[in-house]
Amino acid sequence: MTPFGQRLALAVTQKKNPVCVGIDPRATSLPELLRPNPSASIEQIVQSVETFCLAIIDAVADLVPAVKPQAAFFEELGPPGMVALHKTVRYANQRGLLVIMDAKRGDIGTTAAAYANAYLGSGAPGSSAYSPWGADALTINPYLGADTLEPFTQRCATSGSGIFVLVKTSNPGSSFFQDQRLEDGRTVSEKIADYVESLSYSTRGDLGYGDIGAVVGATYPKELQAMRQRMPSAWILIPGYGAQGGSAQDVKLGLDSRGLGAIVNSSRGIIFAYEQPKYQATQWTTSVRNATLDMIEALS
Amino acid sequence: MTPFGQRLALAVTQKKNPVCVGIDPRATSLPELLRPNPSASIEQIVQSVETFCLAIIDAVADLVPAVKPQAAFFEELGPPGMVALHKTVRYANQRGLLVIMDAKRGDIGTTAAAYANAYLGSGAPGSSAYSPWGADALTINPYLGADTLEPFTQRCATSGSGIFVLVKTSNPGSSFFQDQRLEDGRTVSEKIADYVESLSYSTRGDLGYGDIGAVVGATYPKELQAMRQRMPSAWILIPGYGAQGGSAQDVKLGLDSRGLGAIVNSSRGIIFAYEQPKYQATQWTTSVRNATLDMIEALS
Repeated sequence: MTPFGQRLALAVTQKKNPVCVGIDPRATSLPELLRPNPSASIEQIVQSVETFCLAIIDAVADLVPAVKPQAAFFEELGPPGMVALHKTVRYANQRGLLVIMDAKRGDIGTTAAAYANAYLGSGAPGSSAYSPWGADALTINPYLGADTLEPFTQRCATSGSGIFVLVKTSNPGSSFFQDQRLEDGRTVSEKIADYVESLSYSTRGDLGYGDIGAVVGATYPKELQAMRQRMPSAWILIPGYGAQGGSAQDVKLGLDSRGLGAIVNSSRGIIFAYEQPKYQATQWTTSVRNATLDMIEALS
Repeated sequence: MTPFGQRLALAVTQKKNPVCVGIDPRATSLPELLRPNPSASIEQIVQSVETFCLAIIDAVADLVPAVKPQAAFFEELGPPGMVALHKTVRYANQRGLLVIMDAKRGDIGTTAAAYANAYLGSGAPGSSAYSPWGADALTINPYLGADTLEPFTQRCATSGSGIFVLVKTSNPGSSFFQDQRLEDGRTVSEKIADYVESLSYSTRGDLGYGDIGAVVGATYPKELQAMRQRMPSAWILIPGYGAQGGSAQDVKLGLDSRGLGAIVNSSRGIIFAYEQPKYQATQWTTSVRNATLDMIEALS
C-alpha cells in the first residue's frame, strides 16, 4: 500500500482542502430526530450513534480528505459501542475517506505492538495492511518514551499507515508538562518534535512529508508556527479549530505555501452544526454540510 | 460504594499479599490446549482467549486481591475481543477480585470524561458506580496535563473507583521524558508524583491511602523507594516484577511496614508459567497457581 504520508497528500490535493471532520458522537448531543430518550437501552443508544456517524460520513465524503473518530465516545458505550466504531471506520474507508483513529494510545514493547496491530492498516483481510479496526492512522501518546514509538513506526512501514504523536495539545493545561523547559534548553514539546521530525524525515515522499506526524493544537498559534518550521517533514494534525477557539488565521500557520503539511480538525463545530442558529436547516445533515463548506472556504 | 483506596487496603489485608495478576492474553502464547491453529477465525481465537482469561481468574481468585487486564491484547482482536474483555472484567468482579484496567487512557475535557464513564465503576446497572466496562480502577497517562486528570478524579469520587497515574514506567526508555530535569529542579516524574500525592491526600482513608495512585516500575528500585516516600498517601501499582527483571527485594521498597501501599503486578511470569520448566504440571492452571503461590511467598 502507498505510504500514509503520500496518501494524505494525494487526498488533500484531490479534495483541495485540509479539513478533517472529527466524529465525536456524544449521545446527549445527537440531533433531536436521533437523540435516544432517557429510558433507552444501550442497544438503542448505540443504534442512534451508529446512524448518526454513518450519516455524517455520507454528508462529508465528497468534500473532505479525512475523518477522525474519537474512540472515547464509542468506548463509553461498552462493547456495542465498539461494534459501532468498527462500522464507522469501515464505512468511511468505503466512502474513500482516510480515517485517523483518535485513541491516544501508548504503551511499552509487545503491548505497544498489540495496539499498532489493532488499529493501523486499512487493507483487505489477509493483506499485510489489514488490521481489525482498519484505520489509516492513529494518535499516539509519547509519555512512556521514544522506544515506545518503535512498534508503531514499524507497523506504519509494513501497513502503509501513519501516526500522529502528541506534541502540543490544545487544552489550557497542556503547559503542565509540554511547555516545561529541560536542562538542554528545549521544552518537552520541542524534544518530542525533534524526535518526530527525525522519524518522519526518513519516510518522506515526493511532496516532502512522511508517515510520522504530530498533534499541535490551533489554540497555541505561536507554537504551531514554530512547530511547522521545526518539523518540516511531518504532517501536523491540528485540533482546536472552531469550538475550542482556534481561528482560520491561526491554523494557516501550520500549512505550507502549497496548502499541504497539516490537516485541520473540527468536531463539534461541524457534526453538531445544527445547534448553531446560522446553520438551521430542514435536515441536520444539511447543517453538517454547510458548516463543512464554510470551514473549507475559511481555510482556502 | 466504599472508596477504592479503602477497598484495596481491605483486599490486600484479607488475602495477606499485594499480588496483582496481569491478564495479557497474547493469542500466540496460550497453552497448547487452547492455542488457536494458524487458520483459526477471529471468533475461534477470541473464544480461546476468553476461555484462557476466565480460567486464570478461577485459578487465582482465592489467592490474590486484584487482576489487571491489559486492554491492548483484547483491542488487537477487534470488536469480538472487546466482548471478551467485558466478560473477563465481569467474571473477575463476580469472583471477588478487584479489577485494574490497564488501558493508559488520557485525553482532554469531555473526552477524558467519556473514558472515565466508560471504565470506572464496578457497581450494579442503574447505580452511580455503574460503568459499561465495570473496572474498579484505570491506568492513566498524564502527558496532556494536570487539568486532564480532573474528569477521572471526579468520577473516582462518585463511583468509588481509583486511578493509577503513570509516574515512572518500567521500560528502558522511560528516561526519555520521565527522568528529565525541569527548571524547578524536579524531574518530570517527580512533578507528576507531587501532583498525584496532592490529589490522593484529600481522599485518604483510615489506613492512610487514597484513591489516586501511581505507576512506578520495579525495574527502577531506587526511584521506587524515593517515590514511596514522596507519595505517602498514594497506592503504587508496580509493574516489571519477574519477566521484566524486578526482584522481590526491589518491589518491597514500594511497600510500607504493614505490607500496604503497593500492589505488585506480574503478567507473563504467572499466566504463562507453564512455559517455565519449574512449573511443569499436568494442567496449565496448576502452573498458574503454583507461580502465584511462589510470588506471594517471595513477597511475604
